[in-house]
Amino acid sequence: MFKEYDVIVVGAGHAGCEAAHAAATMGSSVMLITMNMQTIAQMSCNPAMGGVAKGQIVREIDALGGMSGIVTDKTMIQFRMLNSSKGPAMWSPRAQSDRMKFAEEWRSVLEQNTNIDFWQDMVKGLIVEKGKVVGVKTGLDIEIRGKAVVLTNGTFLNGLIHIGEKNFGGGRTAEKAAKGITEQLIKMGFEAGRMKTGTPPRVDGRSLDYTKMEEQKGDLHPGKFSYTLTEPLTKQRSCYITYTNQKVHEILKTGFEKSPMFAGRIKGLGPRYCPSVEDKINRFADKDRHQIFVEPEGWNTVEIYVNGFSTSLPEDVQYRALSKIPGFENVRMFRPGYAIEYDYFPPTQLNLSLETKLIQNLYFAGQINGTTGYEEAACQGLMAGINAHNKVKGKEEFILKRSEAYIGVLIDDLINKGTDEPYRMFTSRAEYRILLRQDNADIRLTEKGYALGLADEDRIKLLHIKKQQTAELLDEVKKWKVSPEYINPHLEQLNSAPIKEKTSIYNLLKRPDISINDIYNFTPETKASLAIYSEEIRNQVEINIKYEHYVEKEQKMADKIGNLEDLRISETLNYDMLVAMSKEGREKLKKVKPKTIGQASRISGVSPADISILMVYIGR
Amino acid sequence: MFKEYDVIVVGAGHAGCEAAHAAATMGSSVMLITMNMQTIAQMSCNPAMGGVAKGQIVREIDALGGMSGIVTDKTMIQFRMLNSSKGPAMWSPRAQSDRMKFAEEWRSVLEQNTNIDFWQDMVKGLIVEKGKVVGVKTGLDIEIRGKAVVLTNGTFLNGLIHIGEKNFGGGRTAEKAAKGITEQLIKMGFEAGRMKTGTPPRVDGRSLDYTKMEEQKGDLHPGKFSYTLTEPLTKQRSCYITYTNQKVHEILKTGFEKSPMFAGRIKGLGPRYCPSVEDKINRFADKDRHQIFVEPEGWNTVEIYVNGFSTSLPEDVQYRALSKIPGFENVRMFRPGYAIEYDYFPPTQLNLSLETKLIQNLYFAGQINGTTGYEEAACQGLMAGINAHNKVKGKEEFILKRSEAYIGVLIDDLINKGTDEPYRMFTSRAEYRILLRQDNADIRLTEKGYALGLADEDRIKLLHIKKQQTAELLDEVKKWKVSPEYINPHLEQLNSAPIKEKTSIYNLLKRPDISINDIYNFTPETKASLAIYSEEIRNQVEINIKYEHYVEKEQKMADKIGNLEDLRISETLNYDMLVAMSKEGREKLKKVKPKTIGQASRISGVSPADISILMVYIGR
Repeated sequence: MFKEYDVIVVGAGHAGCEAAHAAATMGSSVMLITMNMQTIAQMSCNPAMGGVAKGQIVREIDALGGMSGIVTDKTMIQFRMLNSSKGPAMWSPRAQSDRMKFAEEWRSVLEQNTNIDFWQDMVKGLIVEKGKVVGVKTGLDIEIRGKAVVLTNGTFLNGLIHIGEKNFGGGRTAEKAAKGITEQLIKMGFEAGRMKTGTPPRVDGRSLDYTKMEEQKGDLHPGKFSYTLTEPLTKQRSCYITYTNQKVHEILKTGFEKSPMFAGRIKGLGPRYCPSVEDKINRFADKDRHQIFVEPEGWNTVEIYVNGFSTSLPEDVQYRALSKIPGFENVRMFRPGYAIEYDYFPPTQLNLSLETKLIQNLYFAGQINGTTGYEEAACQGLMAGINAHNKVKGKEEFILKRSEAYIGVLIDDLINKGTDEPYRMFTSRAEYRILLRQDNADIRLTEKGYALGLADEDRIKLLHIKKQQTAELLDEVKKWKVSPEYINPHLEQLNSAPIKEKTSIYNLLKRPDISINDIYNFTPETKASLAIYSEEIRNQVEINIKYEHYVEKEQKMADKIGNLEDLRISETLNYDMLVAMSKEGREKLKKVKPKTIGQASRISGVSPADISILMVYIGR
Repeated sequence: MFKEYDVIVVGAGHAGCEAAHAAATMGSSVMLITMNMQTIAQMSCNPAMGGVAKGQIVREIDALGGMSGIVTDKTMIQFRMLNSSKGPAMWSPRAQSDRMKFAEEWRSVLEQNTNIDFWQDMVKGLIVEKGKVVGVKTGLDIEIRGKAVVLTNGTFLNGLIHIGEKNFGGGRTAEKAAKGITEQLIKMGFEAGRMKTGTPPRVDGRSLDYTKMEEQKGDLHPGKFSYTLTEPLTKQRSCYITYTNQKVHEILKTGFEKSPMFAGRIKGLGPRYCPSVEDKINRFADKDRHQIFVEPEGWNTVEIYVNGFSTSLPEDVQYRALSKIPGFENVRMFRPGYAIEYDYFPPTQLNLSLETKLIQNLYFAGQINGTTGYEEAACQGLMAGINAHNKVKGKEEFILKRSEAYIGVLIDDLINKGTDEPYRMFTSRAEYRILLRQDNADIRLTEKGYALGLADEDRIKLLHIKKQQTAELLDEVKKWKVSPEYINPHLEQLNSAPIKEKTSIYNLLKRPDISINDIYNFTPETKASLAIYSEEIRNQVEINIKYEHYVEKEQKMADKIGNLEDLRISETLNYDMLVAMSKEGREKLKKVKPKTIGQASRISGVSPADISILMVYIGR
């Protein structure tokens, strides 16, 4: 029934969609298998993409030629640049999505790719020959052969849903769990674990009183995710903010004895930074309120996502607690929140390419690796898709360094440190935050994406224009001098020291209290000179000037550490010989088998002393 | 968590959606419970509405104030008036739908109705007190109270899916079955049965060669379903026609021994007039080919519905057989066809209002009553919703007579004759086909819908305009005479006898070989006079004139039989006393408990002699 595919992708969530699209665009024949073609790219949890660090990841995916940015741009209902009052390293784009349109658009993108075939079925096992995966077996007992397989099972592997004292199998509410893969992988020597995540109740927007909440509008001049020519929004839908209170907390506490989490029925660890509301009031007992974001699920639907109220308490407790939140007095629920436990595989069992160490040509991406978040899943899918294609086509692995992308940080963390709780990206996880900005992901990555055959020529053209215009304006700004009598009144207004002689705009922009938009507004002349450049180019120039030294410093540090990355460790190195090394260090190194000294240095449990010993040995 | 509702509707397919909308629009507070809010109004089988007799039903639903017509109009991708070369009693509108948009639009309609609340959950039982239903119990062990309950479970009750020798529980592919209700109803004394239906494989339109098929375009001047001001299509997508052949049949036969139907694993009877392809080649062994309609699933998707190829043979047999169909040589499947068995309740256990005889305020609609088809389900949902509302509000039952609507025929057939195979509507089931036309459903029903509080004032206004303009033009046509010298050349061209003296257009239109459009084209004058009336009004006038006598004749017959409908039978009548009656007649009457002599006369097994005895008895 099926030809042999280059790449089989199992699962069509954020990870699976990016993996299938990437491998197919690069030229692989791809089979995308999903349990239900109606639920391709379903957003299982909140209807939003991006946010702090996560928005940067979406920009990186886009810069490489992935589709999450474009799909989001086309289907968002609100856009905000978070942290825009902070330095540019912290700027983080975030969008509210229309849940149905997001899924429809992704499906359409995949359908338009002639290299992607689809099959609706459950994958229950892998076909492995001589240590190499060569296909999958489905619930219908069909064998589909493929040269590489990417598993992106999300929360479906032995998924178990909990609401209060009730629990039942399922990969998502009203959807079946997937069985078979975990058991087979364990037999093959994989270590598996159990994780937990949760989702809040969905409610009827018609039953809410928004006058009792704070409105949160989208940005006045909304941005977007993609570096391509997608259109920014011209109208937006607002979110609303409200708060829990002591009464809400008291009611929630009445459900604690029936909580599957507190009663120990849930074994897996949940996402620390996305805790359930019962977790929050339990762990932060001194806080008398928690923020609730009231998020619409689309342009037209009345369905509302109650962000901040993830819970697995009994549904009647959920309801009674909700109805004590200001604006929720008459709330009607559509469905309760729930927790879900699912299988994951500690990601230290992977190479940096996301290929498993035990079975060749088998790749894992997304929650199966112990991560949480759409963006984290999507970027792993992208990298797994790229690497599966490259492997099959006899090309080199594609690895991003920690200094090149948040994607590099994420995968390096996973592979070397592992995780026993759902891993979420934060800016604090990156040591090169000033390099890894949302505004320069294209500069960092698009040429790489193009070299891979993923980012198309148009992206390269747009990148060249951006680089050229930035250089042009930078030159101009350096030459362009203003006189004191002209500029000082403005500087005074901005509480910035007056100048005494003709000064270049370049030097003025070095001042932290003067932005390029201040200069833009100084005089009709400055306005006219700057107006021919887009906001994006002006920002680039300002960032270049203001953060020049920080960027240089970080780059130097990255280069220095990068040298360690170049010190390769033989795969056959016998760590037992290194008797001078600590026992823990030896064991960890044996387990992870790092490919470079850099990678070895980031393995938890491997000390700087161990690294020195290793370097001495390698030096020989 | 929940208030007490007037009406609880279980299931959100075609029946459930119409039921919820009708009851809510009439003023009931409605709770719509669905296992998955993402799948409201999913078209489980083919992406189309209407067809012979079914199109008339959609028009009737629309005329009463239901929404199936409007939703279809807004989301169709092709429209055809079937049988337009035959008499107007046979004209049947049919549309191809965009599957995703159809579901989205229905959900939006329901969300906009402020009387409808939603809850996502499985209903596993009814709460019955003193012979009356007062609510439902859900899978989450929640009790929701309601004064009336409408069950529209479709194929979900103990649904069992078969593909070749494999079978697994499910209400639809990739969706869970519903458990509990059947078992409870049987305990309460209901009789339950098992039925079967099936669906064809879905395939990738990109893998088909349309040059080897016949194109089937939409109508040049596409019509629409709703009598309201919805817009007709301005662009359409084509379907394609191809055929099976001996090779296809031979391959299919290789799967017969693994067929769940032929091997007897499937116990329920399937729809006789929508047989699986294996059934067709088995029953009609002399036919060397069967027609296949290749139907797109929407405006943009590449997914294709292979109409005519419903099958539950093993998926590899499906695939090999498909690939021998012209145009399908390189076919890629998205998912196999399958058969599904599910529970139904013989509908003789219902009153004409669709309320069960055993449990008050409990209504059944759709496949649970042993019917097949979206339109059959939708109209039952509409009637159950209306009657549930009326019952709860202390109003009279709303029953449509066989002479008033196909809906009346359908429900009367179900209730009196029952069915042990999926019941589908045909024009041949109606004895008053000339009365029950698709063009006059509004004239037949809109005033009734308005009196119910379901059809809105705009519909009444449009109806009055239609009636007035029709009368106006009819008058004009009667007065308007044409001279022989003027008209005879045209008549000659049409092979119609020349006239000898000035003749009214009215009399010319009585001729079967002259249509109003012929007259329209006769001369600039006839054109100008007719052009101020719409196509719809001109058609009305032509039908009025041409079929006047047939209509009168049928109406007289309907009135005569209608008198029998007025002869009411007491509910407490002791049939055992009627010893002169045949034993079978007595037993059937005791079981069905007809309310009128008319109803009694249509019960299968009750002879005209039995009816005479009954009438004599009632005459006393």
